[in-house]
Amino acid sequence: MSRMKRLNLINNHLSSQFPPIPYDESLDNYRKKGEDVNKEILLRHFFRDSYERIMAYRNHMANDPVFNHNDEAEFSRERKRERIIQQIASIYFKANLSYESCKEEFLKKYELLYTLCDYDIGLATRLLIHLVLYINAIENLGTSKHIEHIKRAYHLLDYGCFGMTELGHGSNVAKLETTATYDHIKREFVINSPTATSAKWWIGGLGKTSNMSVIFARLIVEGVDKGINAFVIPIRDNQTHDCPPRVIIGDCGKKIGLDGIDNGFILFRNYRVPYDSLLDKFSSITEDGKFKSSIKNKEKRLGIMMVGLIGGRVAVVCAAEQHMKSALTAALRFSAVRKQFSSTETENSVLDYPLQQYKLIPHLASIFAIRSIVLWFNENMPIIQKKIDENPEGLEVSEFHAILSACKGVASWYANSCVIQCREATGGLSYSAYANLGRIMMNASVGVTWEGDNGVLIQQTGKFILKQIQRTFKGHIIDAPTLKCIQVDHEKVMQFKARFENSEQLENESILFEIIEFRLNYLLHQSMMRLQEVTGNSKDMFDAWNKSQVYYIQELAKAYGEYIMMREYAKFVRELEEKCEKTGKVIRKLFILFSVGIIERNLASFQDSAMNAHQAKVVRDSMVRLCEELAEVCIKVIDAIAPPDSIHGSVLGAADGQVYAKLIEQVEKADGVYDKPHWLPLLQKVKQVKKT
Amino acid sequence: MSRMKRLNLINNHLSSQFPPIPYDESLDNYRKKGEDVNKEILLRHFFRDSYERIMAYRNHMANDPVFNHNDEAEFSRERKRERIIQQIASIYFKANLSYESCKEEFLKKYELLYTLCDYDIGLATRLLIHLVLYINAIENLGTSKHIEHIKRAYHLLDYGCFGMTELGHGSNVAKLETTATYDHIKREFVINSPTATSAKWWIGGLGKTSNMSVIFARLIVEGVDKGINAFVIPIRDNQTHDCPPRVIIGDCGKKIGLDGIDNGFILFRNYRVPYDSLLDKFSSITEDGKFKSSIKNKEKRLGIMMVGLIGGRVAVVCAAEQHMKSALTAALRFSAVRKQFSSTETENSVLDYPLQQYKLIPHLASIFAIRSIVLWFNENMPIIQKKIDENPEGLEVSEFHAILSACKGVASWYANSCVIQCREATGGLSYSAYANLGRIMMNASVGVTWEGDNGVLIQQTGKFILKQIQRTFKGHIIDAPTLKCIQVDHEKVMQFKARFENSEQLENESILFEIIEFRLNYLLHQSMMRLQEVTGNSKDMFDAWNKSQVYYIQELAKAYGEYIMMREYAKFVRELEEKCEKTGKVIRKLFILFSVGIIERNLASFQDSAMNAHQAKVVRDSMVRLCEELAEVCIKVIDAIAPPDSIHGSVLGAADGQVYAKLIEQVEKADGVYDKPHWLPLLQKVKQVKKT
Repeated sequence: MSRMKRLNLINNHLSSQFPPIPYDESLDNYRKKGEDVNKEILLRHFFRDSYERIMAYRNHMANDPVFNHNDEAEFSRERKRERIIQQIASIYFKANLSYESCKEEFLKKYELLYTLCDYDIGLATRLLIHLVLYINAIENLGTSKHIEHIKRAYHLLDYGCFGMTELGHGSNVAKLETTATYDHIKREFVINSPTATSAKWWIGGLGKTSNMSVIFARLIVEGVDKGINAFVIPIRDNQTHDCPPRVIIGDCGKKIGLDGIDNGFILFRNYRVPYDSLLDKFSSITEDGKFKSSIKNKEKRLGIMMVGLIGGRVAVVCAAEQHMKSALTAALRFSAVRKQFSSTETENSVLDYPLQQYKLIPHLASIFAIRSIVLWFNENMPIIQKKIDENPEGLEVSEFHAILSACKGVASWYANSCVIQCREATGGLSYSAYANLGRIMMNASVGVTWEGDNGVLIQQTGKFILKQIQRTFKGHIIDAPTLKCIQVDHEKVMQFKARFENSEQLENESILFEIIEFRLNYLLHQSMMRLQEVTGNSKDMFDAWNKSQVYYIQELAKAYGEYIMMREYAKFVRELEEKCEKTGKVIRKLFILFSVGIIERNLASFQDSAMNAHQAKVVRDSMVRLCEELAEVCIKVIDAIAPPDSIHGSVLGAADGQVYAKLIEQVEKADGVYDKPHWLPLLQKVKQVKKT
Repeated sequence: MSRMKRLNLINNHLSSQFPPIPYDESLDNYRKKGEDVNKEILLRHFFRDSYERIMAYRNHMANDPVFNHNDEAEFSRERKRERIIQQIASIYFKANLSYESCKEEFLKKYELLYTLCDYDIGLATRLLIHLVLYINAIENLGTSKHIEHIKRAYHLLDYGCFGMTELGHGSNVAKLETTATYDHIKREFVINSPTATSAKWWIGGLGKTSNMSVIFARLIVEGVDKGINAFVIPIRDNQTHDCPPRVIIGDCGKKIGLDGIDNGFILFRNYRVPYDSLLDKFSSITEDGKFKSSIKNKEKRLGIMMVGLIGGRVAVVCAAEQHMKSALTAALRFSAVRKQFSSTETENSVLDYPLQQYKLIPHLASIFAIRSIVLWFNENMPIIQKKIDENPEGLEVSEFHAILSACKGVASWYANSCVIQCREATGGLSYSAYANLGRIMMNASVGVTWEGDNGVLIQQTGKFILKQIQRTFKGHIIDAPTLKCIQVDHEKVMQFKARFENSEQLENESILFEIIEFRLNYLLHQSMMRLQEVTGNSKDMFDAWNKSQVYYIQELAKAYGEYIMMREYAKFVRELEEKCEKTGKVIRKLFILFSVGIIERNLASFQDSAMNAHQAKVVRDSMVRLCEELAEVCIKVIDAIAPPDSIHGSVLGAADGQVYAKLIEQVEKADGVYDKPHWLPLLQKVKQVKKT
């Protein structure tokens, strides 16, 4: 034991009511097990060019006491919000963000947001709404006259929010009720909320913080509805923070998580804004009062409005990885430390149990799948942003949108189930707030519904794939590069038999890809057959489409997302192997587990035609064995990617493995731990205790 | 619209900043759809003889403003705890509980707890710990001299808690570290906590409330460890609420839910208690200082100690039904009201979408499965309590334990996934605290780990079943009545083919039972084969057992639990049909959906041998069609069993369907909704706003 460790133990003991806690070597012992992992190589491969900057931010955060989860455990809503402003004040200007620097280095602002999200998605989102949703909307939909808004925003002279969702409409943006009526005489827009359900709702940063907002409203020109357009408008006075007359802003109140974000609502009572508020890259109104747009189709115009959501959706994918990473840091390290049962005197670490391994290790494998696709997004986002300017209706844009929609869904579902599983697998102690798993559960929960409800969003992926195959009916080829594996011939798809008889064959990368590509084809053909089958007794195509979601189009979209992730994961592993063979070998095993895991979760549909009972058994055996082998090395892997203790904030995930000591320390620090309750007189009254 | 409704609307409007909200008829319209349901008959069948009492408690709660969820949304930990004491003060003495009346009417106290749990499991648990865990432990393990404690407890003269779990040991009770050393000279016990991990931990009601506790400790007599025994001891002075010297009690601090329960820890520093503290029904110490026990085997003695957990585990099963009921009240009613998308001008209710139906309706079906098994427990608990006194090692006791262990696991997992699904299916608005789904999520989450970690607990069911089949190897018959369907002949099991070609055949009750019974047999034989397969490369039987959990024994135990639930569910439906044919028909359809749902979730293992791809498709088609048919009538079903609005507390589940109005009302009531934040100066500083 090092001198520092010993001093810490003595120090804690002196102020504690607990018997001395001997140094727990369980985690250290686990670290000695299994294959080698070069942690730095792995982490640099994980973060790529962002490595230095993320590390610098982490370092800053570790040294500022304003970043401390357990401090915040019992904060009220307003205190949490204040704390986030303190945190932003602490770190924001270190990043030196400006219009120019963010143009030059696309990832710059995302690196800051990523590090903040490792701490808490509430903190990151509070800033992301401003830095990504607000700024990118202006950048994507506005013109040069709007650049000044962006510049002010980067310097935090303005704080902006993103007013799209309304109380009555989230997914169906086309039905938003807020109106912006063009007044040609004054060349102004009159913004109005005609109904209660038209109140902009859940707008992050609106409740208490922002003075500016991008507002999406139905543009009315000469009495004609021109569809949804975006406007950048002031909503509070920068000096007094008062709302202008005819603008009502309120707070959406207590939430089940993320209380640090001041979600608000806004109502407009015929609020007038100047013409230049209109973000007019695609649509504008001529000097003589006529509406004009470079995109004729109203639906497609709406599609373009959604461009601003790309950054937010990539952030959801990214956050999924981060939630899983923090949750698994706690769950895996604690599982190594926690002892329960054995057939001998010394109890086993719960991580030694196959049941525990099976609960946790597949999620560890998924982290790298998500990270791999995030790296792809990081690379492709700037390219796509340009393509959108050139040809917003082009194939690359649609394909990117299909991939992002599917991956946003898949990744957030992964995170949700991972975090829930981590909470369950760590038993009673994770019900403590100091384990920080409850916070992460609620953070992960929102991921499946915000930035596009998963079930609705992935239907767009389904549409993209089905449109691609429909091209072949008209004699065209499938032109989306990610769908080259599509097999048009139905008979061929149905004849496919998975080519493995044992684990070794199954775990071969090309066999795995064959199977996963088959899955995509199978679900595509099944979906088409389903659509045909239900069309007869459906009111219309919309109805048939809805009847083909469960088991079919939803699954097809997920399959596509997982296929794309797997492709990027394979690349991630190949490139890592080039940097460090040993580390690459470990992550390759996680890649195989990830792929076999997809098969296992979908065994029923594979057994429809492509696999037999023996193969199903091989799949199950592989799962258990891979989990067992990887359990040996999982602590090293999570060590490599885990955020520092002060950032994940879980006593269960303490890097030094002194879990019980850390928990007791937090518990003894809490307010009133050894005090009588203030409600003792009431209790005594109920218990009929006579006053002495 | 009724006069009351109109008045309410006007009243809300007057004090609101929102435009008037027209009456929303969506839920009323949904109520007109589908088959008839006699709500009162259904609810009486659901509650049986407890109906009148539960209704009386509900009525009391509805008229006392101390029961109000949205009031509590932002309460601190201590304020929540105080509120619960106020709630207990309001209702407890209405129930007239006493030692005698609870002996006479077994369900009496459980009916009160049930109604409180409909409000919140935190409230119910705070009292259940005292009324069930503490009192039942004394009753089950103590003798006549301890009855006085029970009497005092029913009159709330004492408030008791249940000190089993320690910081270091939850599941493995045999390894508890607290010692109770017998001092023959003084005929006392010296209770001691030798290590930090031996602190009793998570003890509900200990942190701030209790003055008495049942403490489980390792009994040491003449230097020999006699295993875990229970002691009833004072832990605080009844007048001063001070801890005695040598007793340290603290609060476990902030949790991720259930903050209204004052979970605490306790440390003993050689604390002396008199001999009569020992709960001595099964073990005692003679006048000359010798340990004696009516149960020779130490392990079996430990088993008996666990009897006190029965009441708590049945409560977990019961709570699962209650969490699902509240969550689905919100999710189904909101889904009828919430409109999004359509192919025409009027948007559809989201409940009209097959995807939404598939997400929610199967959980509605599961509620009745859980309720059916709870009714069985209610009937059998008093019988088993007697059997335990007569022959604690008898078959009936083991079988009851196996059923309870499996059902505790299955029901709490059902509830967990149901509530998570309800949160997801209701989109962004359920992230509001006023939807109350977050509270229920966290309440349901704890169910899978407390009162025995599910994954560990259901292994006891697995053991029971495997022991039963092992009897046949020795020429005995399987004597457990619930396992009469076990097929010993392996070949016969493997030859089974499900007998259906279409939905109509599949949905036949006896076909469904055949399939579900096959599942039990199949998993049993697979488990035995797995055990054999791994024994060769296992260290010992313990190791082999652990290697046979994933896919095998865990699944076997779940299958058994679901089989037993299905049996009771079928009975529930048959008896209901006798009372009301129409209502019975609707619930029968839910029963079929429940059964088909089990098959669907386990299609992969059925496709190993018992079903083909065509049958798999029939199963999937049935699921979607049944959900669609039941969606028509689901509002009536949930109406019948839903708690009143003031008890479930979700604005989304408002019985009158005025969801948006209710939400806005709550939001506008919250503190500071239209105020500037107290941290505005900090924000202005960050934004470099110059003071004017």
